[in-house]
Amino acid sequence: MSENEAPPVVDGFRFAGISCGIKQSGAPDLGLIVADEVVPAAALFTRNTVKAAPVVIAADRIERGRAQAILVNSGNANACTGKEGISLVHSTTEAIAAALGADVDTVIPASTGIIGQRLPAEHIEGAAEELIADLSADGAERFAKAIMTTDRWPKLVHKKVPLGPGIEATIVGIAKGAGMIHPNMATTLAFILTDAPTHSSFLHKALRKGAEDTFNALTVDGETSTNDTIIAMASGKLPISPIGGTDRDAKNFTEAIRAVLEELGQSIVKDGEGAEHVVRLEVHGAPSEDAAKKVAERIASSLLVKTAVHGCDPNWGRIISAAGMAGVAFDPNKVEIRIGDVVVAKNGMAAGGGAEQRAAEAMKEAEYLIRIKLGPGNSKAHYTFCDIGHEYVKINADYHT
Amino acid sequence: MSENEAPPVVDGFRFAGISCGIKQSGAPDLGLIVADEVVPAAALFTRNTVKAAPVVIAADRIERGRAQAILVNSGNANACTGKEGISLVHSTTEAIAAALGADVDTVIPASTGIIGQRLPAEHIEGAAEELIADLSADGAERFAKAIMTTDRWPKLVHKKVPLGPGIEATIVGIAKGAGMIHPNMATTLAFILTDAPTHSSFLHKALRKGAEDTFNALTVDGETSTNDTIIAMASGKLPISPIGGTDRDAKNFTEAIRAVLEELGQSIVKDGEGAEHVVRLEVHGAPSEDAAKKVAERIASSLLVKTAVHGCDPNWGRIISAAGMAGVAFDPNKVEIRIGDVVVAKNGMAAGGGAEQRAAEAMKEAEYLIRIKLGPGNSKAHYTFCDIGHEYVKINADYHT
Repeated sequence: MSENEAPPVVDGFRFAGISCGIKQSGAPDLGLIVADEVVPAAALFTRNTVKAAPVVIAADRIERGRAQAILVNSGNANACTGKEGISLVHSTTEAIAAALGADVDTVIPASTGIIGQRLPAEHIEGAAEELIADLSADGAERFAKAIMTTDRWPKLVHKKVPLGPGIEATIVGIAKGAGMIHPNMATTLAFILTDAPTHSSFLHKALRKGAEDTFNALTVDGETSTNDTIIAMASGKLPISPIGGTDRDAKNFTEAIRAVLEELGQSIVKDGEGAEHVVRLEVHGAPSEDAAKKVAERIASSLLVKTAVHGCDPNWGRIISAAGMAGVAFDPNKVEIRIGDVVVAKNGMAAGGGAEQRAAEAMKEAEYLIRIKLGPGNSKAHYTFCDIGHEYVKINADYHT
Repeated sequence: MSENEAPPVVDGFRFAGISCGIKQSGAPDLGLIVADEVVPAAALFTRNTVKAAPVVIAADRIERGRAQAILVNSGNANACTGKEGISLVHSTTEAIAAALGADVDTVIPASTGIIGQRLPAEHIEGAAEELIADLSADGAERFAKAIMTTDRWPKLVHKKVPLGPGIEATIVGIAKGAGMIHPNMATTLAFILTDAPTHSSFLHKALRKGAEDTFNALTVDGETSTNDTIIAMASGKLPISPIGGTDRDAKNFTEAIRAVLEELGQSIVKDGEGAEHVVRLEVHGAPSEDAAKKVAERIASSLLVKTAVHGCDPNWGRIISAAGMAGVAFDPNKVEIRIGDVVVAKNGMAAGGGAEQRAAEAMKEAEYLIRIKLGPGNSKAHYTFCDIGHEYVKINADYHT
């Protein structure tokens, strides 16, 4: 979202973002999204065995496919907090539900921040009235700021989807994430709101499909947090029949959800702690899509590749070696590697001449492409990652709990 | 090996280490180990799909279970060098075999250094006579220095194993490795020489068993190189019958091989690029050994854990979160984490009080223990890893190919 753009608005939703005193800095740390009524909802959650208390409760509540509100705090993850953590999610969401006049089971919680510390629930409960008073249709940016942790900027995306003649649905996406938090982990929260009418099962399908090559294909530091959550809600304000099935509208809508997640994901990687370069990595010529994805993930997660990217060093040996660690069979003598427009390796060997020098130039760009062709296969995959440099170490080592 | 110790000697072997001009610095870069005759030999090689030319040829030659010499160069990995790379391994080992009067198929090659560059074979071939003239029974340290890349010190281990009444076998281990090389990859080469008589199949079994919880349970940066090689040779000079089977001698011998690999491995992690702390990580209470190993590997590979170790930050949330990413089921509410002697988390929650402060003190040590108990299971595993800090980034990003 550019600075002069109007704040994203989506019919049927209001947003709030205030400071309630969880963050010692006094920065905004409590956000709320409220639908006019109970609406279809769906969610994806972290695959980490260790799940934060809000994740446990959110997963239980969203199971029914409906929600009216999303309550999010930053500054405290409420993870590894035992039974008390669970009980505090109950009491905070009950306080908000009471103030809203909503059913507590329709209030979906999410938290992000430091783990292993007691959630100061009294701050949230005490701020319930103020939070609700802050709700407004154009408050998405306030909400986005309230869920930030080490983020350098709020992350909002706003898209229109044509659905049949003369009808356009709106999708607003809001996310946080920059590798990890104050300073604990790679925490991503994302919220997708639309005025399109649809069922929760279709919304869930669209989310899963959309996350596959976006949120599930990007890495800052290879960590999966205890709190990762993506929630979608559909207000259904648009006067058309519910989207679903496999017709053109369903396809357009699904693609728009994917596009919103992609844009949010790119913004998260760009904001990766200390990142100076964002690399789109493409793996081509793989024997299967699964193999392509494994190779892409291995390269994008390699500390040697990430530090080479940081140093603008066209060290393709690190790339082919990382590919060889993916547990996928390929013929190294068929591999081709491109950095930007420059072929740096062909038939598994140095392309020679000034190629590396030209590639080093391409690597000075803030964003560029690395493309590896494994062989004659037809499958491909991609991944987006950033470099790891001194700033990353500074944020994550030079900080003390 | 302390400075005043006599150089390790093992009956039946001579060692050499010289400069032949592969390294531009003029530092030693060519090493040779020669047995008095063709003897039983065994090896383990990298699991990377991308295998350097010397690995391909070494694996083929060692297949027969016998060898007379090991020819190693540093400064050039001869990896990703296509057919020419293979052909240059043939010509260099032929030159050495001719000068030694040995069969070329008993000369096992190994290389370490930059990948993707043509091996300057003419330097090796031209130095064949000089290399052989340098051979001596007490030359192990010269050899160890000739195989170094970013290593800060040569790595030699010398052990005696009692085998029956009044008989002691000698095992000498020599390795290189410090995370990676000039500056391409995590390259480890290791050589085990013994005067005990044994068969290659038993030697191979002892190597595999010994590597399992030593070389296969340590990490600097999670990379597996194109060149990783461990070779063992047994001169059989000791006047006893060949060791094998499952009797006490066989067990003692196997354990001694493991101990030599362990000591070499510890020295490699200590020399991990920029490492200031070596952590022994123990995972207890797992449902199976495989589960314990998966959790240990995930924690030891976590960039967030490594940077926390660098910063002496007792951020146990990063440890439990990394454990939760291993794909192993456990109850987070049963987890206990110790740093040094300090319990920092109990029942999956902060142990509270001054625990973190005391743990932060323990983390200032150069070497310490982190112990995570997952639950009531009986299985355990361990891993050795080092921190990742500014020096690592400096070595691997601020260098340009």
